[in-house]
Amino acid sequence: MSIKLGKNTYGKNAVNLSKIIRHPDYHEFRQISVNVILEGDFETAHTIGDNSKLLPTDTQKNTVYALAKEHFVSSIEAFGLYLANYFASNNPQVSQVRIELTEHSWARMRFNGTVHPHAYCSGGNEKHTATVVQNKNGIEVTAGITGLLILKTTDSGFENYIKDQYTTLKETSDRIFATECEVSWVYNSSNILFVELFNGIRTTLLQTFADHQSLSVQHTLYAMGEAVLEKFAAVNEITLKMPNKHHILYNLEQFGMDNKNEVFIATDEPYGYITGTVVRE
Amino acid sequence: MSIKLGKNTYGKNAVNLSKIIRHPDYHEFRQISVNVILEGDFETAHTIGDNSKLLPTDTQKNTVYALAKEHFVSSIEAFGLYLANYFASNNPQVSQVRIELTEHSWARMRFNGTVHPHAYCSGGNEKHTATVVQNKNGIEVTAGITGLLILKTTDSGFENYIKDQYTTLKETSDRIFATECEVSWVYNSSNILFVELFNGIRTTLLQTFADHQSLSVQHTLYAMGEAVLEKFAAVNEITLKMPNKHHILYNLEQFGMDNKNEVFIATDEPYGYITGTVVRE
Amino acid sequence: MSIKLGKNTYGKNAVNLSKIIRHPDYHEFRQISVNVILEGDFETAHTIGDNSKLLPTDTQKNTVYALAKEHFVSSIEAFGLYLANYFASNNPQVSQVRIELTEHSWARMRFNGTVHPHAYCSGGNEKHTATVVQNKNGIEVTAGITGLLILKTTDSGFENYIKDQYTTLKETSDRIFATECEVSWVYNSSNILFVELFNGIRTTLLQTFADHQSLSVQHTLYAMGEAVLEKFAAVNEITLKMPNKHHILYNLEQFGMDNKNEVFIATDEPYGYITGTVVRE
Amino acid sequence: MSIKLGKNTYGKNAVNLSKIIRHPDYHEFRQISVNVILEGDFETAHTIGDNSKLLPTDTQKNTVYALAKEHFVSSIEAFGLYLANYFASNNPQVSQVRIELTEHSWARMRFNGTVHPHAYCSGGNEKHTATVVQNKNGIEVTAGITGLLILKTTDSGFENYIKDQYTTLKETSDRIFATECEVSWVYNSSNILFVELFNGIRTTLLQTFADHQSLSVQHTLYAMGEAVLEKFAAVNEITLKMPNKHHILYNLEQFGMDNKNEVFIATDEPYGYITGTVVRE
Repeated sequence: MSIKLGKNTYGKNAVNLSKIIRHPDYHEFRQISVNVILEGDFETAHTIGDNSKLLPTDTQKNTVYALAKEHFVSSIEAFGLYLANYFASNNPQVSQVRIELTEHSWARMRFNGTVHPHAYCSGGNEKHTATVVQNKNGIEVTAGITGLLILKTTDSGFENYIKDQYTTLKETSDRIFATECEVSWVYNSSNILFVELFNGIRTTLLQTFADHQSLSVQHTLYAMGEAVLEKFAAVNEITLKMPNKHHILYNLEQFGMDNKNEVFIATDEPYGYITGTVVRE
Repeated sequence: MSIKLGKNTYGKNAVNLSKIIRHPDYHEFRQISVNVILEGDFETAHTIGDNSKLLPTDTQKNTVYALAKEHFVSSIEAFGLYLANYFASNNPQVSQVRIELTEHSWARMRFNGTVHPHAYCSGGNEKHTATVVQNKNGIEVTAGITGLLILKTTDSGFENYIKDQYTTLKETSDRIFATECEVSWVYNSSNILFVELFNGIRTTLLQTFADHQSLSVQHTLYAMGEAVLEKFAAVNEITLKMPNKHHILYNLEQFGMDNKNEVFIATDEPYGYITGTVVRE
Repeated sequence: MSIKLGKNTYGKNAVNLSKIIRHPDYHEFRQISVNVILEGDFETAHTIGDNSKLLPTDTQKNTVYALAKEHFVSSIEAFGLYLANYFASNNPQVSQVRIELTEHSWARMRFNGTVHPHAYCSGGNEKHTATVVQNKNGIEVTAGITGLLILKTTDSGFENYIKDQYTTLKETSDRIFATECEVSWVYNSSNILFVELFNGIRTTLLQTFADHQSLSVQHTLYAMGEAVLEKFAAVNEITLKMPNKHHILYNLEQFGMDNKNEVFIATDEPYGYITGTVVRE
Repeated sequence: MSIKLGKNTYGKNAVNLSKIIRHPDYHEFRQISVNVILEGDFETAHTIGDNSKLLPTDTQKNTVYALAKEHFVSSIEAFGLYLANYFASNNPQVSQVRIELTEHSWARMRFNGTVHPHAYCSGGNEKHTATVVQNKNGIEVTAGITGLLILKTTDSGFENYIKDQYTTLKETSDRIFATECEVSWVYNSSNILFVELFNGIRTTLLQTFADHQSLSVQHTLYAMGEAVLEKFAAVNEITLKMPNKHHILYNLEQFGMDNKNEVFIATDEPYGYITGTVVRE
C-alpha cells in the first residue's frame, strides 16, 4: 500500500487592505482582509520540491493590492469575482481558486444630523464576509456575516425537553436569548445586486430574530433561515451557527431576595452551540 | 536590612453581570464587568497566613450581584459609588476601595424608524468605563472610553520632523489618521449628571477629532483634551492614549501604476503610541 | 419549491474540566476542554419548537463532569470513546455523536533533577486534540496537535518558482522556516495504545521537520506526513496545516550595513497558508 | 484657570525583531518585541503642531533593527541599556528614555538526548521581560516574567476568613492553587550578570511556590517575594501579580456521587486578583 498526496491547498491569508474611494462630496473608506486559496497540480512541489508551478504567496499578495486600485470599487463580492477569475485565467496549473473576503465596517460620523465627509467610527466586530469559488464547474458566490452579536430580553423560552439522571436545568418560559451569530448563504447567480441583497438579508435576519416567539435556539435559527429563503429568490441555501451566549439567572434567593428575571451572570464558557442549514427542496 | 511588605491589593475581577430594567414600554438591557480592588491592613495575611481580615473575593462577587438588584439602576458611575461606599463602610480593615466598571454597549434594534422594545444589537468594542476610588481623602470618580476606533481619511499630515541617519519615512501633508483611542477623565464632583456628561464629552472628542487640521497625533490629542476641558467645567483633567493604527501607502509604482492615496496596507504592529494628559493649571 | 431543514448539529462546547488522579507517589493533573456535538432526529425542534427529543446542552455538560470521575483515567481518546458511546446508547434520537477533546499540557516542575510530586508548569499553547465520531457506520478516532509552534534557522529555501509582473520576492537558498502547525491523523482502530502512538507520532513530526532539507513549505509538509504513515501502521491518513510565520530579512543595506541572515522582522499577517493531506493508496 | 499639557509620552511599540546568532556548532535563535517610550520637551508639538523636536516613531523602529545587528548579542537587559543610552545621547530634547523588551522563549529540539543545532520549539506563553529607564537621575533596570502559568494540586488551603451575609464560599484545607503569575523585580545595578540572575530568580520563584504550605494566595505571594530578596542581593524590590485561576470542585453529590478533590470546573472569569510588592526596609 503506497503513500500519496491527498487534498492540498495553499495561498496568502490575511491580506489587509484599505482603500479610499473619493466621491465628489465625501470619502468612502473601505477596509478588507483577503485570503487567496489555490488548488491544482502541485504534487511535485510536495514530493520532490519542484516549485515550477507555484505562484508564491508573496506574489498573490502583491496581485491583490495591485488589482484593488482599478477593481475594488463596489462590493467585496464583485472584487472577489474579479480576483478569482484573474488567478484562474493566468494560472493553468490551478484547478480551483477560492477567494475569501472579510469587510470591516466603518460608519461615517454624524453630528447634529449631518454626516461628516471623511471621519469614521468603527462599526464593531460585525463583519460582512464573501467567498468566491471558481473551478471547472463554474463560479459560486457565498455571502455572510460574522460577529453578529444580538440579544433579546424576552419572547424566548426552553421547556419540555428530555430529563434524565443528570438533568439540573430548570424549565423557563422567559429567558434572555443572546448569540454571536455566524451566517452564510449561497447565491444562485454571480450577476446580482450584492449590496442591496446583503442589506435586505441582514435586516430580515434581525427582524425575524427580534419578533420570533422562540421555543428554543433551534426554533429561531430555522425561522431566520426560512425567512431569508422565502423573501430572497437569489438565495439557495443558508447556514446559521448560533453559540448560546448564556445569561444565567443569579441565585438571589440564597440571600433572602427574589430575582424576577432581573440580575444575571453573563458567561462565555461552556456554551451551547447550535448550527443548521436551511435549503430549498 | 530587613524585608517587608510594600503596596498590596486584592479583590475580585471580571464580575460579569447583566440586568434587565423593565420600563413600561421597553426593556432596558445592561451588561457590565466589575473589578473590586481593596487596600488595607493585610500584612499578617501575607506574612503569617492570618486570614481573619480578608473578605474573600468570592464574597465580594456575591455582594456585587446582590447589590445590583436595588442599586444598579442608572449610570455605572452611580453603581460604582454605591459599591465603594458599601465595602468601605462594612470593612474597617480596608483603607481604600477601588471599583472599576466597564459597560458593554447594546443598541436597541430599529426597523423602519421604529425602535424595538426588547431586541438589541451589540454596540461593538467601544466601552464606557468608570472608576471610583474611596479612601480617607474622599471619593474620586473617573469616567472614560476604551476601544474608540476612529479614523479620518484626510486633514492629517506629518512633516518637518527630525531627520537622522535612520530616517526613511517620507513627509506627507495628507495621510489616513486612525487610532483606537483610550480616554479617561477625572470629575471634580461625585454629584453630577454622569450620563449626560459622558455623552457630551464623547461627542466633543469625536467632533474635535473629525474637524481638526492635524499636524501630528500629538497635535490632535491635545486639541481633543483641550476641547473637553474648555466645555466641561466638571472635568479637571483628561488623559488620552492614541495608538497609531497605521495605514501605509502601498507601493504601486513598482508595477508601473500610481497610487494617489488610494490603496493602503493596514498594519497592527509595530505601532506608534502617543499618550498625553491635559490639565487645568 | 419548498423549504426544509438540511444538515444540523447541536451540543455543549468548551466544557472545561480538570482532574487530579492520585498516584502513590505523585498527583497527576489533567485539564481538558470537551465539545459534544449531536446529530439526529431534530427536525420538529426546528420547525415547530418541539423540544421532546432535545437533551439539553446543560445536561450534556453535567454528564461530562459526572462521567469524568470514573472514566477519565487515561487518554483523552479513551474518554472520548466512552462519552461517544454513552450519548449514543442513551439517546435513540441521536444518529451521530461527535466528541472533540483538547488537552492542556502541564509538566511537573523539576528541581536539581528531581520531579516535584504535585507542582506543575504549563506546557504552553501546544495542545493534544482528539475527536471521536460514532454513528451507524462505526467509530472513528482522530488525534492531533494544535499550536505546535516550531522553527528552524536554516536548511530551508524557496527558489525556482513562477515569476510574473507582480513578483517582488527574492529567491533564497537559506531562510528561517517557522510555522504554528496544526496536525491531525485518523487511526484505523479504536483499540490501540493512544498515549504511546501520540508521543511517537509527535516525535516523528518534529524530527522530520528538523532534519528535512526544505525546498518549500509544501515539500516539508509532505515529508512530515509521509514519515508518519511510513512508521505508524495504525494511521491511515494525516492532515497538516502550516501557516508560514514569516521572518523577513530586514533591509540594513539602506543604512550602509550588510545583513547576512542575521536580523529579521517577525510578522503575523499576511501569512502563507499551506495545507495538505497525505494518505495511503 | 488656564489649560496646559501634563505628562506625555510617545514612541514605537511592538517592534518585533528576530535574530540568528551563529555559534560554531549551533544557531542561537532569539525573538523579541521592543517598545520605545520617550518623554521630553514636546509641548509645542501638542499645542501648535511643531514637529521639529519629534524623532518619528518610524525612525525609532529603524534604529532598533539597525542597532540589533551589533548590539543585541546577549541579554535583553544589555540590549535595552544600549538602546536607552543611544536615544538619550542622540536626542537632547528627550529627558527620559524607557525601553521595554519582551523575549519569546524558544527551546532547541532534543532527540534521544541530543540537542538539535538549529531546530526549535516554542517555549510557550511565558516571556522574559525587561525595562530600562534612563533619565537625569540615572539608569534603572527591571526584569521580570509574564505568563508564568503554574499550579499545585495540594499544600494549599483557605480558611478562617471573614464571614458575612453574602458568604457562600466553603472553607477548605486542600484546594488547587493555580495562577498565571506576572513578576518583576528592580535591580540595584546595571552591571550585573543578567542571564544568570534571571535564571536563579525564576528557579527560586518556582521552588518557593511548589514547596510552600499555602494558607492563602497572599501568603504564598509574600513567601515567593521574600525568598528572592533573601537570596539575591542585586534585587531591591519585587512585585508579584497573581490572578487566581480558579478550579472549582464540581458538585457530584447532586448525582449521588462523592468528589474527593477529583473533578473540577476550570474557570477564567471572574477571578481573584492578588498583587503585592516585597521590599527591603
